[in-house]
Amino acid sequence: MGFFFFASRAAARFLGEARIIHPGVSTAALLVAAASGGGLVAYADSAGENASSEPSQEAPRKKKVVVLGTGWAGTSFLKDLDCSKYEVKVISPRNYFAFTPLLPSVTCGTVEARSIVEPIRKMLDKKRKDVAFYEAECFKIDASKKAVHCRSAVGTNFDGNGDFMVDYDYLVVALGATVNTFNTPGVMENCYFLKEVEDAQKIRRNVIDCFEKASLPNISEEEKRKILHFVIIGGGPTGVEFAAEMHDFLVEDLVKLYPAIQDFVKITIIQSGEHILNMFDQRIATFAEMKFQRDGIEVNTGFRVVKVSDDLITMKSKSLGEVSVPYGMAVWSAGIGTRPVIMDFMQQIGQTNRRVLATNEWLRVHECDNIYAIGDCASITQRKIMDDISTVFKMADKDNSGTLTLKEINDVLEDICIRYPQVELYMKSMHMLDIRDLIKDAIGDSHKESMVVNIEEFKKALSHVDSQVKSIPATAQHNKDTILLNVLTRWTNAKNIQKHLGQFAPLGGEQAAAELPGDWVSMGHSTQWLWYSVYASKQVSWRTRMLVVSDWTRRFIFGRDSSRI
Amino acid sequence: MGFFFFASRAAARFLGEARIIHPGVSTAALLVAAASGGGLVAYADSAGENASSEPSQEAPRKKKVVVLGTGWAGTSFLKDLDCSKYEVKVISPRNYFAFTPLLPSVTCGTVEARSIVEPIRKMLDKKRKDVAFYEAECFKIDASKKAVHCRSAVGTNFDGNGDFMVDYDYLVVALGATVNTFNTPGVMENCYFLKEVEDAQKIRRNVIDCFEKASLPNISEEEKRKILHFVIIGGGPTGVEFAAEMHDFLVEDLVKLYPAIQDFVKITIIQSGEHILNMFDQRIATFAEMKFQRDGIEVNTGFRVVKVSDDLITMKSKSLGEVSVPYGMAVWSAGIGTRPVIMDFMQQIGQTNRRVLATNEWLRVHECDNIYAIGDCASITQRKIMDDISTVFKMADKDNSGTLTLKEINDVLEDICIRYPQVELYMKSMHMLDIRDLIKDAIGDSHKESMVVNIEEFKKALSHVDSQVKSIPATAQHNKDTILLNVLTRWTNAKNIQKHLGQFAPLGGEQAAAELPGDWVSMGHSTQWLWYSVYASKQVSWRTRMLVVSDWTRRFIFGRDSSRI
Repeated sequence: MGFFFFASRAAARFLGEARIIHPGVSTAALLVAAASGGGLVAYADSAGENASSEPSQEAPRKKKVVVLGTGWAGTSFLKDLDCSKYEVKVISPRNYFAFTPLLPSVTCGTVEARSIVEPIRKMLDKKRKDVAFYEAECFKIDASKKAVHCRSAVGTNFDGNGDFMVDYDYLVVALGATVNTFNTPGVMENCYFLKEVEDAQKIRRNVIDCFEKASLPNISEEEKRKILHFVIIGGGPTGVEFAAEMHDFLVEDLVKLYPAIQDFVKITIIQSGEHILNMFDQRIATFAEMKFQRDGIEVNTGFRVVKVSDDLITMKSKSLGEVSVPYGMAVWSAGIGTRPVIMDFMQQIGQTNRRVLATNEWLRVHECDNIYAIGDCASITQRKIMDDISTVFKMADKDNSGTLTLKEINDVLEDICIRYPQVELYMKSMHMLDIRDLIKDAIGDSHKESMVVNIEEFKKALSHVDSQVKSIPATAQHNKDTILLNVLTRWTNAKNIQKHLGQFAPLGGEQAAAELPGDWVSMGHSTQWLWYSVYASKQVSWRTRMLVVSDWTRRFIFGRDSSRI
Repeated sequence: MGFFFFASRAAARFLGEARIIHPGVSTAALLVAAASGGGLVAYADSAGENASSEPSQEAPRKKKVVVLGTGWAGTSFLKDLDCSKYEVKVISPRNYFAFTPLLPSVTCGTVEARSIVEPIRKMLDKKRKDVAFYEAECFKIDASKKAVHCRSAVGTNFDGNGDFMVDYDYLVVALGATVNTFNTPGVMENCYFLKEVEDAQKIRRNVIDCFEKASLPNISEEEKRKILHFVIIGGGPTGVEFAAEMHDFLVEDLVKLYPAIQDFVKITIIQSGEHILNMFDQRIATFAEMKFQRDGIEVNTGFRVVKVSDDLITMKSKSLGEVSVPYGMAVWSAGIGTRPVIMDFMQQIGQTNRRVLATNEWLRVHECDNIYAIGDCASITQRKIMDDISTVFKMADKDNSGTLTLKEINDVLEDICIRYPQVELYMKSMHMLDIRDLIKDAIGDSHKESMVVNIEEFKKALSHVDSQVKSIPATAQHNKDTILLNVLTRWTNAKNIQKHLGQFAPLGGEQAAAELPGDWVSMGHSTQWLWYSVYASKQVSWRTRMLVVSDWTRRFIFGRDSSRI
C-alpha cells in the first residue's frame, strides 16, 4: 500500500494547492484557519472575485448557499460545511438521506427500508445547524438570475401550483443521476429499477405479488414458469446483489411458504459484457459466476436487451442473434443517466453532448461563477500535469539545483497527488507502491543509487500519468477544496467505502467477494462477515446502525417477512 | 368476578348445548371426540343434513371449506380448525394478518407497519396445515352454485382478467367491515381512514407531507395554520388514540425538527355525541377530555360533519348551526359499514335493510345451508331463553321434583350461559357475581336458606335476561360451536382482549385509561404500562412480539422517524 493512501488528505491537499498554484497566499494564515477545528477556510479560488466572501469587520450579510440534493454528495457536503457562516438552504424531493448500498437488501426484506434512511432535518439538527430544508424538486437552474426554480413534491393543496424560486450566492448541485434505459423500448414502462428507496419497496411488493399470482388456481404450469421468471438486466454489483438476495429469499424463506410453486422459479442475469462484475478483478467475476451456476441462477453474458414488452424480453447476441424470453418481473440495473434538469442546465451553459456537468478541479462548473457540482451529476476536467510540469519542477526544486532529489520529490508528492490525482491513479493502476518505482521505471537503473532527476527525466517519469485524467469523479475523494468545503472533515460516500474499505459484491448464501485495499481479493463466508462489519460501521447514525444490525439479527432468527405491504 | 367467567367455555358449552337442546345425542361420544385433543367434533347441527360429514369407514372425499378473509375472525377460526380433516382454501386480498389495535401507533411511526403483520402462510405453516391461500378479493357469493367468485388483486399479467371461481361444501364468511361515511359528501375523496395497514402508512406519509408543505417558502401564516390543522372525525377509541399519537409525535419529535412551524399546529376532534369515548365509563371520558384540554387538543362535541371539501370541513350542531373550518388533513373514524359483497349477498338471501349478516346461534347464516359468518360482518340473532324456559327447567330438574335446588341449577348453569349468553351479559350488567344473586333478586328473602325454586320463580328470575339479546357479536366469545369449530382451543380476538383484559384508550404522554375486568377503571401512567404489557402479550407470534417491543424501545431511545417513505 502506498504511503500516501491514508494520509490526512484534505488539509494537506488544500495547503499543497496553495503552495503550488498560488505561492503568494500565506501558508501560515491558511494553517491557522485549517487548524481552527472545523472552521471554513474562505479561500479565493482561481476566479478571484470570491475574495469578497471573506468575513470583514462589519459582519456583512451572510452569503446564501443553496444545496440541491440529499444523496451521498449533498449530505457529505453539508456535514463538512460550517453552516453558521452561511445562510444555507437545502432542496430535495426526499426529506431523508438513504444509505443506497443496502438498497438491494431492502428488495427482499433482509433489511427494512426505514433502517437505511435518516431524516435530513435530523442530520442537520444534530450539528445544531440552522439550515432551511425544502421538500421540493428543482426543475430549472437559472444561472443568469442566480436562482433555482422548484416545485413542491407534496401536492398543491395550497394556493398556486406549488412552484417557487430560491436565489443563491453559491449553488451546490448534487442532484445525482437517474436511470439510463439507453432508449430501449418498453424499459420505462415494464421494468423495475433500483435507484430510490421507493424502487426497492416496489420490487419487494412485486416479488411477493409474483409468488401470490403464481399460487392462484387456474394458472397453467407455463404461466407459473413465466410469472416466476425474475430477470435482472445488468450484471454490475447492484444487479448481482439483487440476484443473490432473490436467491437467498427463495431458498431460505419462500420454499417453506410456497412449496407448491418452488420448482417454477428461475432467476436470470442478462449482461452485455463477457462477464458479470466486470469492473472487479477477474477472479471475483469467475467466483461469482461459478457460485451462481451452482445456485441455478442463469447468467446470459454477451446479450444486449433491445426491447421489453409486458411479457417478453428481447435480447441480441453476436453469435445467436435475437432471442425472446417470457418473464414475470424484470429489474433494470444497466446504467445511469442524466437528470432532465442537469441536461437543461448543460444546454444553457453550452456543455452539450455530455453526460455529466464538467467542473474544474475545484468542483466549480466551467463558465459558471459560484455554481459547484459534486457527486454523480458532475465530473472534473482535470488539469494535465504535463501542462504545468515546469512549475511543478520549479516548486519542488527548493535549492534551485536544476535537479530533484528523492527527498525533494517526496516533500511535494502529497501536494502533487492532491492537485493531480491522476498521479496516484496511474501508480495504482501500475501496481506501484512508491514514487521510487515511477522514477526507476522512467530513468532505468542508470543512477540507481543517487535517484536524482533533471527536468527531462522528471517529465519522462510523469509522461503517462495524464492518461488517467478522463475518469475522475467529482467527489471529495479526489477534490474537495472548493470555497465552501470544510477542509478538516471526512467525506464518507459510496466511492469512499469502495476505495478505503474495499469494494464488495455480496453473492448470497452468506458469501461475498471483495477487492480490498492493496489489491487483495477476498472471497467466501469470511468476506460476507467483513461486509456486515463494514456496512454496519458506515451507517450515518447510531439509530440506523442499530436498526440495520437488528434487521440482520431478526432475519437470522425469524427469516424475512413475506407480507405484501 | 363470577365463577363462570374463565371456565373452559367452549367444550363445556358444546356439551351443554348437546345435553340441553339435543338430549338424544350421546354425551359420552361427544366427550370422547372433544377429549381427543384438538380433534374436530363433527356435530350435527339443527339443520340435520350435515350428519353425512361424520367420517365413515371408507374415508370419504374431504369436504371443501372456503374461508373468506384473514382478519381477526378468519385467522382465529383457522387456528381453531383441524385443517387436516378438510380441504381448506383461504381467500383474502391481503396475504397477512394485521394486529389492528396497533394501527393508530403505525400512523406516527411509534410502531412500524411490518411489526404488526404476520404472513398468513406462515401462520398456517406453523401448524403444518396444508391449506391453500389465494391472494384475491371475493366479489360474489353464489349460494345456489356453492361457489364464490374471486378476482386476483395482483394485476392481470397472465391470460384472462384474473377472475376465478372456487366451490365449497362449507363457506366461512369473515370479510369484516369497511368504513362507513354515512354518504357524507366529500369524505371518500378527501379523508384518510384507519381500517387497513395501507391506510396507516398513507396517514404517516401525509402527516410528514403536511409538515414539509408548511415549511416551504412563500406560504402565508394563514396557509400554514390550514395545512397543519389535523382533524379527526369521530371520538371513538381509534380516533382518540390517533389524536394522542399525533400530539406525542408533535411534542416529542416534530418540534425539534420543524421548530419554525410548531406554533401553527392544531389537532381537533369532532364528535357527534356529547362526549368522546362514550362507550367507556364516564370517568374515562372525563379524564380523556381533561387531558386533551391540557394538551391543547380541541374537542368539538355535539357536532356532526355534513360535508368535506378539499380544504373545508363543514359541521353542524343543534345550538350553533353550520360551521366550516379549513383543514390540512382529515381522518375519518366515525363508523363502520357493510362491504359491497356482503350487501349483495344479503340481497340474494333476503336479508335486506341489515348492516351485517344475521346468523343463528351456531353462526350459520339464516336460510343458508353450510354458510357461516363470523366477525364484524355478522351478528347472531340469539334465541330467547324465555321461549325455551320449560325445556330448560325440565333438563335441570333431574329428580323430577318440580322444583330446582341451587345445586341443580349450578349443574346446568354453564350450559345455560353458553346456549343463552344473555344470561351472563345480564348478570354482568347488574353486577351480580353469582346465580344466587339472580334468584335472590327474583324470589326475595322468603326462603333464603333452602334456595329452592319452582318453574314460576325460575321464569321470574330469568324474565329480564332476554333484554340483552340484541347486541351479540358473532365471535367465539359468545358462540363457537359450529360444525367446523374446534372445541378445545382459544379464540383470541380484539373483542376478547377487551373483554378478558380490559378495554384500553391510550391518551398520549405515556398515559392511558382502561376499563378492566370487574368494572375497575384505571387511568394514568401505570395504565399505559399495563397497555404495553397486554398489547405485547397479545401479538400473534414471537416475531411480531419482538418487533413491537423493539419498536417501542427504539422510539424511547431515538424518537420516531420522520422520513417520508
